[in-house]
Amino acid sequence: MKHTFLRFTGALAVAVAVWPAAAQQTTTMPPGYVPEFGTMWTFDAPPLDYWQSRYSFNATRSWLDHLRLAAVRLPGCSASFVSADGLVMTNHHCARSCISAVSPETPDYLHAGFTAPTRAEELSCPNLYVDQLVGIEDVTDRIRGMVTAASDAQRVAQREAAVASLQASCQESSGNRCQVVRFYNGGMYSLYQYRRFDDLRLVMAPELEAAFFGGDPDNFTYPRYDLDVTFLRVYEGGRPYQPEHYLSWSAAGAAEGEPVFVVGNPGSTGRLLTLAQMEYLRDVDHPARLTDYDRRLEVLYALVAKDPEAARRYENTIFGIENSKKAYTGYQAGLLDPSIMARKKAFEDDFRGRIAADPALQAQFGDAWGEIADAELELATFSTQARYYGFGGSTLLTRAVNLVRVARQAGLPDAQRIPTLRGEGLDSARQALLLDEPVDLALEQMQLAQWLGTARDELGAQDPLVRALLGVRTPEAAAERFIRESLLISVDERRPLVEGGVAAVDGCVDPLVAAMRSLEPIANSYLTRSLDLNTVISSNTEKIGQAIYAAYGKALPPDATFTLRISDGVVKGFPYNGTIAPYKTTLYGLYARSADFDDKPPFELSERWKLAEGNVDMKTPINFVSTADIIGGNSGSPLVNRAGEVVGLAFDGNIEMLPNKFIFTDEVSRTVSVHSSAIIEALRNVYGAGHIADELRGGRQ
Amino acid sequence: MKHTFLRFTGALAVAVAVWPAAAQQTTTMPPGYVPEFGTMWTFDAPPLDYWQSRYSFNATRSWLDHLRLAAVRLPGCSASFVSADGLVMTNHHCARSCISAVSPETPDYLHAGFTAPTRAEELSCPNLYVDQLVGIEDVTDRIRGMVTAASDAQRVAQREAAVASLQASCQESSGNRCQVVRFYNGGMYSLYQYRRFDDLRLVMAPELEAAFFGGDPDNFTYPRYDLDVTFLRVYEGGRPYQPEHYLSWSAAGAAEGEPVFVVGNPGSTGRLLTLAQMEYLRDVDHPARLTDYDRRLEVLYALVAKDPEAARRYENTIFGIENSKKAYTGYQAGLLDPSIMARKKAFEDDFRGRIAADPALQAQFGDAWGEIADAELELATFSTQARYYGFGGSTLLTRAVNLVRVARQAGLPDAQRIPTLRGEGLDSARQALLLDEPVDLALEQMQLAQWLGTARDELGAQDPLVRALLGVRTPEAAAERFIRESLLISVDERRPLVEGGVAAVDGCVDPLVAAMRSLEPIANSYLTRSLDLNTVISSNTEKIGQAIYAAYGKALPPDATFTLRISDGVVKGFPYNGTIAPYKTTLYGLYARSADFDDKPPFELSERWKLAEGNVDMKTPINFVSTADIIGGNSGSPLVNRAGEVVGLAFDGNIEMLPNKFIFTDEVSRTVSVHSSAIIEALRNVYGAGHIADELRGGRQ
Repeated sequence: MKHTFLRFTGALAVAVAVWPAAAQQTTTMPPGYVPEFGTMWTFDAPPLDYWQSRYSFNATRSWLDHLRLAAVRLPGCSASFVSADGLVMTNHHCARSCISAVSPETPDYLHAGFTAPTRAEELSCPNLYVDQLVGIEDVTDRIRGMVTAASDAQRVAQREAAVASLQASCQESSGNRCQVVRFYNGGMYSLYQYRRFDDLRLVMAPELEAAFFGGDPDNFTYPRYDLDVTFLRVYEGGRPYQPEHYLSWSAAGAAEGEPVFVVGNPGSTGRLLTLAQMEYLRDVDHPARLTDYDRRLEVLYALVAKDPEAARRYENTIFGIENSKKAYTGYQAGLLDPSIMARKKAFEDDFRGRIAADPALQAQFGDAWGEIADAELELATFSTQARYYGFGGSTLLTRAVNLVRVARQAGLPDAQRIPTLRGEGLDSARQALLLDEPVDLALEQMQLAQWLGTARDELGAQDPLVRALLGVRTPEAAAERFIRESLLISVDERRPLVEGGVAAVDGCVDPLVAAMRSLEPIANSYLTRSLDLNTVISSNTEKIGQAIYAAYGKALPPDATFTLRISDGVVKGFPYNGTIAPYKTTLYGLYARSADFDDKPPFELSERWKLAEGNVDMKTPINFVSTADIIGGNSGSPLVNRAGEVVGLAFDGNIEMLPNKFIFTDEVSRTVSVHSSAIIEALRNVYGAGHIADELRGGRQ
Repeated sequence: MKHTFLRFTGALAVAVAVWPAAAQQTTTMPPGYVPEFGTMWTFDAPPLDYWQSRYSFNATRSWLDHLRLAAVRLPGCSASFVSADGLVMTNHHCARSCISAVSPETPDYLHAGFTAPTRAEELSCPNLYVDQLVGIEDVTDRIRGMVTAASDAQRVAQREAAVASLQASCQESSGNRCQVVRFYNGGMYSLYQYRRFDDLRLVMAPELEAAFFGGDPDNFTYPRYDLDVTFLRVYEGGRPYQPEHYLSWSAAGAAEGEPVFVVGNPGSTGRLLTLAQMEYLRDVDHPARLTDYDRRLEVLYALVAKDPEAARRYENTIFGIENSKKAYTGYQAGLLDPSIMARKKAFEDDFRGRIAADPALQAQFGDAWGEIADAELELATFSTQARYYGFGGSTLLTRAVNLVRVARQAGLPDAQRIPTLRGEGLDSARQALLLDEPVDLALEQMQLAQWLGTARDELGAQDPLVRALLGVRTPEAAAERFIRESLLISVDERRPLVEGGVAAVDGCVDPLVAAMRSLEPIANSYLTRSLDLNTVISSNTEKIGQAIYAAYGKALPPDATFTLRISDGVVKGFPYNGTIAPYKTTLYGLYARSADFDDKPPFELSERWKLAEGNVDMKTPINFVSTADIIGGNSGSPLVNRAGEVVGLAFDGNIEMLPNKFIFTDEVSRTVSVHSSAIIEALRNVYGAGHIADELRGGRQ
């Protein structure tokens, strides 16, 4: 293991301050630290004193540099270099598109698994790349210096220009990918530089039955038994890339109580949301969203129940909605938990108290909470209308309103258009109307009927939308007619309407289009009102981001931004189900959960694992939990011990972790990881891939 | 398997109407049935039509008689005959006193397990017996006919006399044990006759590590892995008893979705409680009780932390309190669940509506709910005072108040004494003061100090109790002085005070006794007020019991009375932990849960099970869950299938079942049972007890 800088970081033209000189001394855990903000530390502000006091661990600059440079980012996921020959470890669920892309029809590698017997047989993943974070620079002052205008709109434009210019000059001078990252809602800006590797090859992937054992029911839960791992290899110039920084492998994994560090890219959290924003989500947004999931599922389940072909076609759609529903149910459980809201309130009281105590800060930021709360309250007064007048209930609804809207807005000066159709928006919307995308008319009719029925129930029979679209018809009859008389289904019938502008729209006999002629102006007014209120909210959340930075400094890690973080925690079970969840599960438990369900999907074992029963050590840990702080985007993050060795691979959280989106707690919420020992055991004794285990272990056993 | 009546039931002098002639036709599940009342059916009112419609199962008279007569009741538990030679199956935790009693010092059979190699080596259990229910007769009208007085007190006396007379004449004529059972708070009375068997011998008991695997953490939970079984044998005349009715053994156990029937003796439920009574429990009783558990545990843990000898001495006490705390936390979770309270309210509204709809019923019963609610509200106004003036916080507190009380009340005519000291109560209280029971002074001092401190916090510094016992002292100083100057510790110092009456008490210099001279009258007034209000509640709950019987008949099974019931349900998993709990667990899971916790107590495997790993079929089901309705007292109940064969042995519920105490639900609450297959597998391949497996299987494999 090497701890030197990567050579090319020294060649950067802009200053790369990955490690501010004073950080090792000054970054501490001050008394004002709020644990609910979690532990997603940026690499330029690691809490060294806190780690020292909590774990008796002195993290060095080279230790942190090494982890940062061994980590890589996949689209939507995290990963890491784990061998001298460029082996990259991530989750199976992060590599599915590659596995499917490289697979022949038979065997289907997604369901059969794949192991390249030799390097020559490693399979090239199309369109996949990983990014390595090679530089971090605080550019807050530079951006602020370029934002001088008085009006909000002008300031936004100046800021966008400043960001674009910084990114462009960085890319030009370094040859790296450069991104200005907005922390604390704009309280701080950093310039991140990435080196991209775009030749990745598939080395080893277990079958889905092992990687996603337990399927959707066990998703977001623990105890768990998933081998959610895939190995890729980075090639450069047609040969395996040899990274200076890669993670070595722990011989035994992490013990109970041992500190662990997750290095990866958490995607998005809302820990800076105000109480009013959380209440809006709890009372308005999430209930509507969950109802929407249920309605979509109701239609889809009804459809697939009578059509096996539809069952295959919508399998992934249904899985996606079920997955979102489970996640949002978990988020909502947090928002409905009085103790979580009380913690948020306690923090907000403290925060506002700190601002109020300084007249200058109070003058600058003091009104922000109230303005957000007022805007949220006003949004709530017409949220049902805004939802239905968005016409998202079916493909034909969306096409009809967009057809009318594009035609009419095209006649206005750019600045007078609705915001979404300014600039290139108008042409994008027009092109979207000309795409040749088929409509599943069976699904369309069911969706339309359902949407019309719930619109009548929620808006009332006298609402213009209900009167125009439904009148005295039943939802079923209206839906049937809209489809029967539709001119929006085929692109050939649609094109003349799109190209004919206002005249074509005004003369159109499609009944949906006819109704939209009267509804589109109402829809525009709801849309504009929503956008205006959201602008108020957004400019005030930016104030709060600046305020929090002013009040707490970097003591509070910023919300997740899908950029590299290091989170600390300990390996630890938790209270569960009236008893205790163990800190780890073992292979015994994999066979147990399968047998408990009589080997039925999604708890069936693959043939490979059935055959392996006599060959594996049943006591081998397969998954384990820790109090580290992760969220979507962290999938594939390595967990390392204080020696920087891989002890695990994060792939999920338990169900209690979902509310961490808003507030971090570690009483019961846990990160779920694949145990390093299970990976070695499976490679050697299940997959006949001892050579990969050997590569990971660097020749050790 | 035989289905005839036991011969001696025909010899009964009183009519034994175990099966009213019309029951098979008339007992149906009427539209008014309330599922929240559960399924603890009495054997004289089985819901035959419901079983027919729900399970397509036609339960016959002989099927029910057979189950009733194969079932037996142990003190506090349930059991059943399971072989032609009088083998009785119950839970290990129901037979612990016998196992300990028959065990030598080494090996300790409780921790080592025991299997009698031959019948001659079966060990006689001292003081153990089982009762077999041989007759049921409705005696409601006979008792009502003997209750003719106008005053409540006289009616109570007449009813008690009627019950005693019925029991005595039954016992004399039949030679059986006879008990009048009060159903529906007195809405119905039945005379139950039992045949007692009092020669029981221990045949086989697994070690505690297997019977109670998972210990206190896993108690009240599922998934679970306990072999909570023990076999006894009934002897008669020195030879194994050969019952005409015993349960045969299922070859495969119960499949998922299969109906099962639990035959056993549920102890006590509160499903007839009014909403006001549940609210009192929720708002007053349970919070105080849970706080009390926490305080007692705090003192005990502090004590055992510094004294290993105390740790051994109080191990069982602590376990008992933790167990109660877990149970009451579960009950309280139900009471705090708005959906559960809403269901109770919906039922109460329906019930009161039925009563109000009939003027005669309204006149007789209509006021009962209001009177209970008023009494509960009044109890709540002084519940804190009543609790502290009960002086239950320490042994010396109790002794001091009782010393003063006994001396003073002895001078009053019986009828003027407080109710608890009337009749034999006075002498019992005096004798209790003369028992030579040691006081643990370290514990006593900690308890006193804690009690004095919380009394001051909860009653306020101006309360007479706080002024008299604490004054200006700290709780610690006061406790130290009470013990230092106590005359109540040794029985030799206490005896002259008890025997010296009022004069001795008045002259006593013990500081606790001195304080009690002024506090005892206040305590008496709180006590009397509580008792009076509870009498009001009790007479009105009896009215409600009569009213429910009048409104719903036997459609609603009566609250549990520790008498034989048959409950139906299906084998079924449940939503749990964000995913699904399987309907059964397997031996894999036993080894898994042990390995997950690194084989640490209470998850350590016994040596016997470690050695057996290669010999057992790991897929053997060990525990399973069903929607059957049980509660404490049902421990040891057999679960049978429609053929009347043993498929399991009930031993616990999941944590979600605890609120079933008040309202039965089956969305997530489950009965947890040992699977019949695990018993056979363990007997044959772990315990070297193939002969017992053979006996259970009646010669089949």
